[in-house]
Amino acid sequence: MNAKTLWRLVKSSLAVAVLTATAPSFAADWHEIRSPDGRLEVEFAVEDGQAVYRAEYRGRAIIDRSVLGFRFKDRPALVSGFKIADVERTSTNAQWQQPWGERRIVTDLSAGLSAVLSSPDGRKLRIEFRVFNDGFGFRYQLPGKPNERFVVSDEVTEFAFSQNYKAWSIPAYREKFSEYEYSRSALSALSVVQTPLTLEGNGLALAIHEAALVDYASMNLRMAADNTKTLKADLTPWSNGDLVRARGGQNTPWRVVLVADSAAQLADSTAILNLNEPSRIGDASWAKPMKYIGIFWGMHIGKFTWEPGPNLGATTARAKEYIDWAAKNGIPAVLIEGWNRGWDVPEWWQNGKSRFIFDAAAPDFDMAEVSRYATAKGVEIVGHHETGAQVQDYLRQLEPALDYYDRFGVRSIKLGYVGTRLDVHEWPDGQYAVEAFQKVVEATAKHQIAIFPHEPVKDTGLRRTWPHVMSREGARGQEYNGGSPDSGNSPDHVTILPFTRLLSGPLDYTPGVFDFDYREKRPINRVPSTLAQQLALFVVLYSPVQMAVDLPENYEGKPAFQFIRDVPTDWETSKTLMGEIGDYIVTARQDRHSSDWYLGALTNERSRALSVPLSFLSKGRRYEAQIYADGAGADWKTAPERVTISKRIVTSRTVLNLSLAPGGGQAIRFKAL
Amino acid sequence: MNAKTLWRLVKSSLAVAVLTATAPSFAADWHEIRSPDGRLEVEFAVEDGQAVYRAEYRGRAIIDRSVLGFRFKDRPALVSGFKIADVERTSTNAQWQQPWGERRIVTDLSAGLSAVLSSPDGRKLRIEFRVFNDGFGFRYQLPGKPNERFVVSDEVTEFAFSQNYKAWSIPAYREKFSEYEYSRSALSALSVVQTPLTLEGNGLALAIHEAALVDYASMNLRMAADNTKTLKADLTPWSNGDLVRARGGQNTPWRVVLVADSAAQLADSTAILNLNEPSRIGDASWAKPMKYIGIFWGMHIGKFTWEPGPNLGATTARAKEYIDWAAKNGIPAVLIEGWNRGWDVPEWWQNGKSRFIFDAAAPDFDMAEVSRYATAKGVEIVGHHETGAQVQDYLRQLEPALDYYDRFGVRSIKLGYVGTRLDVHEWPDGQYAVEAFQKVVEATAKHQIAIFPHEPVKDTGLRRTWPHVMSREGARGQEYNGGSPDSGNSPDHVTILPFTRLLSGPLDYTPGVFDFDYREKRPINRVPSTLAQQLALFVVLYSPVQMAVDLPENYEGKPAFQFIRDVPTDWETSKTLMGEIGDYIVTARQDRHSSDWYLGALTNERSRALSVPLSFLSKGRRYEAQIYADGAGADWKTAPERVTISKRIVTSRTVLNLSLAPGGGQAIRFKAL
Repeated sequence: MNAKTLWRLVKSSLAVAVLTATAPSFAADWHEIRSPDGRLEVEFAVEDGQAVYRAEYRGRAIIDRSVLGFRFKDRPALVSGFKIADVERTSTNAQWQQPWGERRIVTDLSAGLSAVLSSPDGRKLRIEFRVFNDGFGFRYQLPGKPNERFVVSDEVTEFAFSQNYKAWSIPAYREKFSEYEYSRSALSALSVVQTPLTLEGNGLALAIHEAALVDYASMNLRMAADNTKTLKADLTPWSNGDLVRARGGQNTPWRVVLVADSAAQLADSTAILNLNEPSRIGDASWAKPMKYIGIFWGMHIGKFTWEPGPNLGATTARAKEYIDWAAKNGIPAVLIEGWNRGWDVPEWWQNGKSRFIFDAAAPDFDMAEVSRYATAKGVEIVGHHETGAQVQDYLRQLEPALDYYDRFGVRSIKLGYVGTRLDVHEWPDGQYAVEAFQKVVEATAKHQIAIFPHEPVKDTGLRRTWPHVMSREGARGQEYNGGSPDSGNSPDHVTILPFTRLLSGPLDYTPGVFDFDYREKRPINRVPSTLAQQLALFVVLYSPVQMAVDLPENYEGKPAFQFIRDVPTDWETSKTLMGEIGDYIVTARQDRHSSDWYLGALTNERSRALSVPLSFLSKGRRYEAQIYADGAGADWKTAPERVTISKRIVTSRTVLNLSLAPGGGQAIRFKAL
Repeated sequence: MNAKTLWRLVKSSLAVAVLTATAPSFAADWHEIRSPDGRLEVEFAVEDGQAVYRAEYRGRAIIDRSVLGFRFKDRPALVSGFKIADVERTSTNAQWQQPWGERRIVTDLSAGLSAVLSSPDGRKLRIEFRVFNDGFGFRYQLPGKPNERFVVSDEVTEFAFSQNYKAWSIPAYREKFSEYEYSRSALSALSVVQTPLTLEGNGLALAIHEAALVDYASMNLRMAADNTKTLKADLTPWSNGDLVRARGGQNTPWRVVLVADSAAQLADSTAILNLNEPSRIGDASWAKPMKYIGIFWGMHIGKFTWEPGPNLGATTARAKEYIDWAAKNGIPAVLIEGWNRGWDVPEWWQNGKSRFIFDAAAPDFDMAEVSRYATAKGVEIVGHHETGAQVQDYLRQLEPALDYYDRFGVRSIKLGYVGTRLDVHEWPDGQYAVEAFQKVVEATAKHQIAIFPHEPVKDTGLRRTWPHVMSREGARGQEYNGGSPDSGNSPDHVTILPFTRLLSGPLDYTPGVFDFDYREKRPINRVPSTLAQQLALFVVLYSPVQMAVDLPENYEGKPAFQFIRDVPTDWETSKTLMGEIGDYIVTARQDRHSSDWYLGALTNERSRALSVPLSFLSKGRRYEAQIYADGAGADWKTAPERVTISKRIVTSRTVLNLSLAPGGGQAIRFKAL
């Protein structure tokens, strides 16, 4: 074609003309907010009555002039005619401590700007920016008095990217929500996608996400109509089309742009945590990082069932077996799925059909006895609340359900929201879902019970405010490798997650498959991984609670299980050493309770040799590297179980050469000597 | 999650139960059609009244039980209650010759089955299968008498893939139609995509496309609601929602599944050509493969304009300059864009605004004089018809327009359909578009004028029937690297096209950029390629007409231009030697008019070393390899122009080691000695 380009040219010329015509106001109105290290520069202005921003990193434009504002169902829009009523500069320079986390100390260093804009009819819209070294955020405070109610029909927020970056995305508004493998595409090919959205190009890595989503709809990103590089906010609606049922003075979540020199650096960003409010639960020591096993994988591979029958998973006897095994192997907790009443309801996973009871055990399960036994063995029970996406029914039962767990000493619950719509009608990430989940967050906080939500509202850094929300699913997890008829994940999936889904928070992926031969019951399913990679996942895919997923008997007599015994779930600090999205990643983390370090390396379907300088280790100290590597001929397809365990002495000056098999990995404990 | 999996389990169990219950009819009704080499097995049945098919390749399931049928706006559906009225076996074993092509001889070797199904109300639906070694096709013949008219409201056709393959796709129903970069994703993440759709996994490469689209709507593929591996036909609708306004007895296009052991093998498939009808134009010697230059790139990089003004591209004087240059450099033809009346209409690219006149030149262009001059110099003019997507207006003017070109000896036309909808309302790949284009095909055939459509209906192998439809755009071409404000293509784009878009037919990509420094006028645009790669594109991206795209002055004094002089556009045979989608490709082609061979190799943004055995060369013969390789330090970002030209003697026993720079490539002429 040709004339298309003419069209583009003309459009570009017009844009230039506009800029030229408004050059005087241009110069006058742009407020610059520069990150403390000076590299990231965000500018805000009211230009021709529009609220706009743009951003540069290291002198390269990343986001061009992008419009901010709102439309409402029941009152005039706030998109034009703005004047700046007030501008205030802010800054932060602090360190704070995570009760648990991938790093103990988080540095909160930022420059900020808070602008009050007045609309022609006198309403005031506040827009607040915070610019960190590793990204920036902005949020709106909606106008009106606290008792005012109104409906947001469009959040205008644009992200007009300067380049047609490479994008890693999952689609929005699909039946399986967040449980998709990531697509790699040009930014220009996107339609409507979820966040975090990760972008690469021009020597940069970017991600768009949000922070502190507590009383608003989730933000998706939709391609703007006439442009191939501009995405705009697309809030998940209520079933009647309302986007947000807002109140006067409400703050929106922060809209966050993470920026880094590389994907590896992006993976270590802390801006989202810094944009969340400090903890509201005081002493959080009851929300404990830990490993657990579960009556879980047996269901996925078809050995057990959730519903009553000859192979029922959650029986008193089996729970005791698992408790015994956990106690013997130093695993602090056991998840029991399918213990309560309701699993026998036919097709409960279909909208509106489930009838779960949360304070009564199914006939084959004696909660009192199991609880007593667990306590005697020093093992915790991880409870399980499958809501079947009937959230009002769950909320109605929530207090008795938590009382019940209190009574039996259950201090953490895996939550499930299986279904295609909440309460038949509502998307699982609209305001309806967010507010319903927040009620669960607050109720469980009062009971001092930690939660691990599956099919969750996406994480937006809420663990800072509510550290008992420990880890979420919200991704296509290991379970797909076990019992999904669409035959599992691709081998590159785990090399994409750390740069995409993990940017939002911890992931309850459930690593640790040791027995790859379950074809008898699942002929088409494969775990696209070697055993060494399964170990490395404990390090790379951060979660404060990690379920060693395989059947206990599959760990018996396996020397490699020692790594699962050893690997901590709470860290002093963490560093993504290297990585390319979809290809490989190497992550190092320091144990919070010792001087030991751990390293995990993953590759996709290709074998790979990597040289890793151990400069993260303490200078002058010697470590015993306990190395769990892919064995000779290991390959996820043909010989996944081959693992070689070796030891050597290393220091911070050592450069390790890692050899990773197809679908392989390597896990290392650096034991401080 | 967990219970989702339960859901899946239950679903699987039900499916098994159904199969068991119907086992007797199962065994009785499946008709096997096996490819001549025995590797590809397609089975067709009427099972429980449904027409269904499935396919295996080398004993591995590729498509599970998939349903066939139709729904109509104005009569009962044809989806159930079928009985088989008649089954006929067919086969082909022939060779036919392409007047021009990537190979002269095409082998048509297939097994076939044609089944007539009767519906409960007595209507007859014919379904016809053809199974080749490299894929299979099936089509429907709709019931009714030739004068019957009815409206298809759904084509049920399913593709229930056996695995969650990796998919390479572009989205359907988007403003830029086919001009997107390809996304790489899991099959399960697709929403609605165009064809060809390319899939990889389980050691296979697959593609879904169609053949012989002449009077029907284009087929897109949409994810089925409750499944993550089943795509179904999604026909591009008319603006009123009709899918196809059909007539009794009409054949649908062939639905085609290409199958191969590797992506490289997939790229050489011929099934789509074999499923098209033989040529209807008799002696096609007037449709000539050729190279051309054009008054084109100057517009894209902002040096010239299409519309009148100081830098107008299409002037008599400039046309003569280009003709002189073509004559001097052995280039047979010159494309002239912007020569006719209508380019001064403001915003002509917006729906319904264009007012192009096709039989009158713009004031600065003297067609008679340019034509006379070209003839005298022995150079052809490639004409240009930009329709501005107003196809009825174009069809109304078509005869006088073709008469006009006849008068001035113009034997080929580049067509343009710039706009977002045809005639304001219709998608550019619905039945409206297909039928309007077919009128142009037939009219130009009568005039013996070849056409190169841009913004075309997608190719479906029509060049077999109408060999004057020589090459199409229908992809994100080189032009995006020149003047697109969304900053061009990614370096991997050209390594994806041969495995995706090119499966449908030749691509008018316009290779041959030599001057990469046009930042003065296009600061954000880059050609993500080295010069050697630009040469290799002439070999890899097959087109019978290849425009050397750069400004003639940029070729002056460049030794590498010799390759563009030498490289043919018509081939005796072709072979994709190796390749990985999105990473690299190496293609070899033999000149149709000499014993010379040519090789093109491309890599994505990564440098790459490849060992290429030259076993395709004639045994025992010596060749002078004229090698155009990336020079030392070449890199698309920093030093794209560095090219090294060398010569060496090789034979079919030589193994060449190719070293490709980031964004690089290599082009080789093997001159037979």
